[in-house]
Parts: sequence; structure tokens; C-alpha cells
Amino acid sequence: MLEALKEEVLEANLQLPKHGLVVFTWGNVSAYDEETGLIVIKPSGVSYDEMTADDMVVVNLKGEVVEGHLRPSSDTPTHVYLYSKFPEMKGIVHTHSTWATSWAQSGLAIPCYGTTHADYFYGEIPIARTLTKEEVESEYEKNTGVVIEEAFKDRDPMATPGVLCRNHGPFAWGKSAAEAVHNAVVLEECAKMATLTRMINPDVKSAPGYLMDKHYFRKHGKNAYYGQN
Amino acid sequence: MLEALKEEVLEANLQLPKHGLVVFTWGNVSAYDEETGLIVIKPSGVSYDEMTADDMVVVNLKGEVVEGHLRPSSDTPTHVYLYSKFPEMKGIVHTHSTWATSWAQSGLAIPCYGTTHADYFYGEIPIARTLTKEEVESEYEKNTGVVIEEAFKDRDPMATPGVLCRNHGPFAWGKSAAEAVHNAVVLEECAKMATLTRMINPDVKSAPGYLMDKHYFRKHGKNAYYGQN
Amino acid sequence: MLEALKEEVLEANLQLPKHGLVVFTWGNVSAYDEETGLIVIKPSGVSYDEMTADDMVVVNLKGEVVEGHLRPSSDTPTHVYLYSKFPEMKGIVHTHSTWATSWAQSGLAIPCYGTTHADYFYGEIPIARTLTKEEVESEYEKNTGVVIEEAFKDRDPMATPGVLCRNHGPFAWGKSAAEAVHNAVVLEECAKMATLTRMINPDVKSAPGYLMDKHYFRKHGKNAYYGQN
Amino acid sequence: MLEALKEEVLEANLQLPKHGLVVFTWGNVSAYDEETGLIVIKPSGVSYDEMTADDMVVVNLKGEVVEGHLRPSSDTPTHVYLYSKFPEMKGIVHTHSTWATSWAQSGLAIPCYGTTHADYFYGEIPIARTLTKEEVESEYEKNTGVVIEEAFKDRDPMATPGVLCRNHGPFAWGKSAAEAVHNAVVLEECAKMATLTRMINPDVKSAPGYLMDKHYFRKHGKNAYYGQN
Repeated sequence: MLEALKEEVLEANLQLPKHGLVVFTWGNVSAYDEETGLIVIKPSGVSYDEMTADDMVVVNLKGEVVEGHLRPSSDTPTHVYLYSKFPEMKGIVHTHSTWATSWAQSGLAIPCYGTTHADYFYGEIPIARTLTKEEVESEYEKNTGVVIEEAFKDRDPMATPGVLCRNHGPFAWGKSAAEAVHNAVVLEECAKMATLTRMINPDVKSAPGYLMDKHYFRKHGKNAYYGQN
Repeated sequence: MLEALKEEVLEANLQLPKHGLVVFTWGNVSAYDEETGLIVIKPSGVSYDEMTADDMVVVNLKGEVVEGHLRPSSDTPTHVYLYSKFPEMKGIVHTHSTWATSWAQSGLAIPCYGTTHADYFYGEIPIARTLTKEEVESEYEKNTGVVIEEAFKDRDPMATPGVLCRNHGPFAWGKSAAEAVHNAVVLEECAKMATLTRMINPDVKSAPGYLMDKHYFRKHGKNAYYGQN
Repeated sequence: MLEALKEEVLEANLQLPKHGLVVFTWGNVSAYDEETGLIVIKPSGVSYDEMTADDMVVVNLKGEVVEGHLRPSSDTPTHVYLYSKFPEMKGIVHTHSTWATSWAQSGLAIPCYGTTHADYFYGEIPIARTLTKEEVESEYEKNTGVVIEEAFKDRDPMATPGVLCRNHGPFAWGKSAAEAVHNAVVLEECAKMATLTRMINPDVKSAPGYLMDKHYFRKHGKNAYYGQN
Repeated sequence: MLEALKEEVLEANLQLPKHGLVVFTWGNVSAYDEETGLIVIKPSGVSYDEMTADDMVVVNLKGEVVEGHLRPSSDTPTHVYLYSKFPEMKGIVHTHSTWATSWAQSGLAIPCYGTTHADYFYGEIPIARTLTKEEVESEYEKNTGVVIEEAFKDRDPMATPGVLCRNHGPFAWGKSAAEAVHNAVVLEECAKMATLTRMINPDVKSAPGYLMDKHYFRKHGKNAYYGQN
């Protein structure tokens, strides 16, 4: 079932090592199929070199395995929670990419310092709150989804398609698995440049709001004029 | 028309990923043809993997498309403005290369700390002023050219062939598209070394003026003695 | 003798340049064969390009060469000492990998800032004390093992499978040569991210203990649920 | 003439881009032939991709071209001066490698923070003094040799086979062109690790003198026991 989507999810997973976002098996991509209400996700701890479309696991919105001969990613409950709460998300990616993870470890949101960030993420890239001891000890992966949801209480997740999980690493998403990976690559590059920006000038301020608006709406929304028609 | 120049511009664009200056499609190179007064520029948002010479777009100095089946780069009005104001520029490149963009985001010009910089850029690499809200909201890309022009009011753009656009990224140029890309590579390396230099010694000062003069004039001007005849 | 283990040790050594952990010949991997009580180790100062399984050297727990036409790594007495004191170690690797060595040079243990670290190393990655003048001048390599042993007086070396030798570089280990190299790669990545984390936020604190516990025991021990069965 | 040495010098030059030490043509290697008193050096400003052994230039100890159809490197007078003052040097390399050049720009010598450095360089890697205006304006390249000589007034250049030229970049040397390049690679790695070490711990001190002695003499001198016989 969902053979085409399995190919898409496989391909999106293989983009992670190609873009230098993962060491070993430290990343996973999933996609949501609106029609069937099912999720296709990478198996847990399988090497990217050996993975085939057939290894992808199908789970439902309760997190139950519907098809597949391998265990799904241990982060599956986070993916499931996000798809159930944010119906516009059709692809989700989680990595431990070096620079974004360093921001997640630092406990700080990534400020918008320039147009590279503003082209893809509206405003800062938020950081979810620390999970409590109780939240970690029971349903940890689902609760990771809960704190992400909280971080977007007053934010549009499709305008800011990524988040930092504190002491952990980034999640990114999009309207497909491929777009989620694209946003994860951008998030990593923005995290790197934000780090260097602060090293060069520790007193740096965020970019002006009107510049953020201009760049975001130059690429998104009905008056966009970037790219081809 | 301008088939040879299209090949040159294509090749110059392909040098950007080869030198690690771009992620995805975040860069564009153009060239100016003095004879016809026309500009050849990369199309907007097209992947470097798929681009052919035939995809290059020809525009005139009013920014109107003269030939091409694709939209020109969204930064075209900046290129057009610079060619119209600085007749010695024959090639222009814009990227979001990591280290130069981090300086642009930091709000600081890149000081000349050594001979690598001095061999190519006379004095600091300037940073253009922040655009006002009005300049961003109306003719943003053209106004990016206007603030670059301002930054060179008392500077020779051919002696300092690059600039940082605040909260945005670098532009570089030269006597051809290839030379513009060469200068963009040097700018990126100088930006990287300037960052590291300040990390090693936060109290570092610029190189002595007489050393900057020596290196610049060793490679440029009528008494140059670097390279082959 | 031990032909299969020699192949394993060769392969583990070749993983070091593949993962960017070594410059020239600055690294060595060994494995311990429980049955015979013998160690297979890389020869000293031989290029990775030219090394064959046949070049591996077999030594006993007194550090005497039992088989091999080349001298064993100059760090052999450290490996021998560790195998003799920690019977659970079956593979050991020593490198001068860039980021872990920089921590070793800095004189600081690597704090656990996040789950990437916590998935593999329980608590901080310790730093051994400085060797005294006497320890350096007599049996230096063996004494390197002695100070590592001291650093694990109150720690389980199999739960924290790595250490920094002050002013020197990292050692990592595991239940096989391959696992030792895997842990060395993780140690390097954690060292890099810890450095960047501190650059972003100099006041950063370690991750909460309950998060470290969760991640460590999610992958290790009898209730582990990461990876396939 | 000196055909075998030209091949050696070509090969040594080609090692520079392989080890990531040069951008474009920013580096040059030479070798000294004791028998004839002649130097073989890279031509000026020629791309590494196109260089052949036949392009190498032969100069004498007065810096006069004895053979070759191209101009020698513009840094030739520095090489010539060093060979004439330090008869043990048989190969010299100059680069603008990123991390060593950043130290040169910072105005600081590279302290010995650990054994990687101590294995190759005895004590700190010194930084030559700033050239005066007069020294820069007349015989600049020769005077670069003069200040290097000054920096080794109380130091053995064969025990510390490299130096930083202030606001410029590193020189390294050895008993052959190949060894000079090897030392240049080590110098770059030590420069990188020293930078990171200070970022991790701004209060870091140099390694103990007895550790530096041990590592240096473990690899050099009559009691060396590193590598094969």
C-alpha cells in the first residue's frame, strides 16, 4: 500500500546524508497521506545505505503499525502527534544536524538576522520548553509533540516550518516530505550563519521587521514573484 | 542572441556550487555586453543541475526581458542598476555564501587583516546602509543597487570589487562574469579568515596601510609583477 | 593467527579516515580476543592507504609482540593496560580528531548538553588528570592507561565509553573494534556540538538528569526500544 | 636539468590542494638541490590543474632564473633568502591556509596546547615581526626572509619547522619538499585546534614543558621510537 509515497519518503530520507544533516542513522522523515489518514515513516536505526522503499513503515494516527516488517522510528509518536494537530503538515523531518542541534542545546531561539532566514521562516525559529520529569518519563516522544504544539500557540506553523526541541534537536516540516527536508537544510544553514553572526558581533540585533515581511511575502502568498510561474 | 555570453554566464553560475558558495538556488551571476547594452542573467529559482545556456535570460538596461523563456532572477533590478551606474563592471554575482552573509548580518564591514584580502580588495569590504521601510516596500531590488552605489561614493568599485548588503548578503563584480565569481570566492575566504582572526584575538587591528598598498599594487596597475605576462 | 580479527581491526582502522577522524597516521584501533588473551593492533606510522590485514600486529597482555613483521603502534602500552584492567572492553581506538582533541587541550570534560550525547555517553565525557613529570618520563604510554583508569574509579566505562587525555586527545572503546570506532565518531560530533553550544550561549547548563537517563536507557539496557530487535 | 627534482616539486605543489591548503593559486613549494646549489620552484599564478613538471622554474641563490619558460613565484626571494641562511632546509612551502593565516593575521604565535603540536613543532610556532614601511617598499619579499631569520635567532628551525608571517600567512619547511608540505598540513591542523581550544577555554595554558619534550623526542633524535625502523 502507498507504494508511491514510500518511494517519496525513502528519497526524502536519502537527502539527509546527501545534505550532511545526519551522522549514522540520526534522522527520520515521514509523510502523511490525507486520503487514507496514514503515515509512512523511516524504520528505526536502519542504515541509509541499505534502506529500501519496502522498509518504510505505515502507521495510523493512533501510532499503530498498519504495514511493514520493521519497527518504525522511535520518534514516531512525535510525528503522529504533529500530523494529528496540524492538518496542513504533509511531511515532517527530525535530525540532529550539527548547528541547529547546537542552538537547541543552547536553550535559545534562532533570531532572524537576515533575508536567508526571512525567505523561509517568518520571525524567529522558536525553541520548545523543557519537558518536565513526568513528561519525559511517560510518553516522552508524544510529549515532544505536545511542547512543539505549545510553541506554535500564537504562530502559524506553515509560515515558520521548524522548531528546536530543547537539549535535543530540530524538527522541520512542509507540504510534502521533500519540502520538509528542504526546510531542514535551510534551518541548518540559518543556524550556522546565526552562530557566526553572533561571533562576529556579539551585540547584533534582529533584522528590521519590514525586511522580514518583504522577503517572506516575496516568496510566499499571492503576490510572490520569486521563481517560475 | 549573445550565445557565447550565455555560455559564459552559465559556466560562471555553475562555478558557484563548485566553490561551495550556494545552497540550492541561492545565487546568481550576470554579465553585461557593452556592444549591445544588454545583460545576460540566470533565471529565477532554477536548479544548477538542470540549467542550460538556453535558460539564460537577456534583459536591457531598463530591466525588460528581451529574450528568454523563463523569468530572470528576482535580483535583476539590482544588477541592472549597478551596470547602469558603474560602466566598468562587466560581470556581477550575488550569493548568500555562509561567512560573507554572516558579516552582512552582523552589520560590520570586513576590515583588511592581511595580504590575502589586500591582494584583491583595497581597504575594507564596505557594508551598505540599512534600507528604509519605504525603500524596501517600493522597488526593493533597485534600491539595493542604490545603497551599494552610496557605499562607493568615495571608493573605486574596481579596486574594491565587492560589498555586503546589510541583513542580506554579498555582491561581487569584475571585468567579466568569471572574474566576478573569482572575487566572490575571495570575499568568502576573507570573510572566513576575518571571523577566525577576531576569535583568536578580539583586540586585533587592521593591517598597516603600507602593506595593503604593496600587495594591492603588486597584483594590479602598471607595476604589477604577480603572475605571468 | 587471528586472521578474522586482523581483518576486523584493519576495517575499523580504515573507518577512521572515512569519518574524517585522522590526519596522516594519527590514529589507531585495536581489538582484544578473549579466548587467546591476545590483542590485534595497527602498526606504528603506516599510511592507511597501504595498510593490509597482514600488517596488523599481535601482542599479548604484557605488550610483547607475538606475531607481525612491523612494530605495533607506539600507543600499544595504553591499549594493553586498558584491556588488562577493563575486561568488558573488546575494542579500543585512539585519535587526534579535531574537536575532541581541542577539548582535551582545553583541560575540560565535555558536559552533556543534549540527547545526542546522552544516547551514547552517560554523563559528562571525563578528562583524565595531567600526568606528572615522572609519569611522562618513565612508561609514559602505560601511565596514560593508569590515569584513564583513575578517571573511571567511580564510573562505568561501558556506560561512558570514552575519555579525554589532557593535552593529548580522545580514547574511545566498545564491545568490538567497530563499536569503538562508532563511539569515537559520536564523541567527535558531541565535542563539536558542545563547542558550538557554548559559543551560542556561554551560560549554558547541562541537560536535566532525567533527560539523560531517558535517552541512555532508551537505547541501552533491558528496556531499550531503539533500533530493530 | 634537475628533472627528478622538478617532478618532486610538482608533486609537492599538487599536495597543497589535495590537503585543502590553497584556494586558487595561493601557495608555492620549492626544493633546494645541494649539489648544484640551485632551487626548483613553482611558477607564479599558474593553476594547479594545468601545471606540469616542465613548468617548474630553476633559480640560483642570487634569485636569477637559470632555466624555465615561466616567471617563478613572486615569493621566490623569500625562498632564496631562507635557503641561503639555513643550509639544513631542503624544501620550503608558503600558503595562505585558512587557520594558520588567521593566526598570522591575529598577531599571535601559536602556543603548544598538546601533543599533536609537540610531535612536530618544538615549543610555540613563532610569529615574525611586522615589516617596516621601508622593508615593505624595497625588497619586500627578501625582507620577509629577513624577519623569519630574526624569529629563529634563538630557535632551531629544524626543530620548529614553520613560522607565521604577520598579516600574511605561514611558511613551513623540511628536509625535502614533501616533508615541508607535511609540516604545512600539521601547522594548519594545529592552528585549527589551537583556535578551538581557546574558544572552549579562554583561560587555557600551554602544555607542560616535560610533555612537549617527551613527544618531540619520541619522534625525533636518536632515541625516537615512533614509526618503523
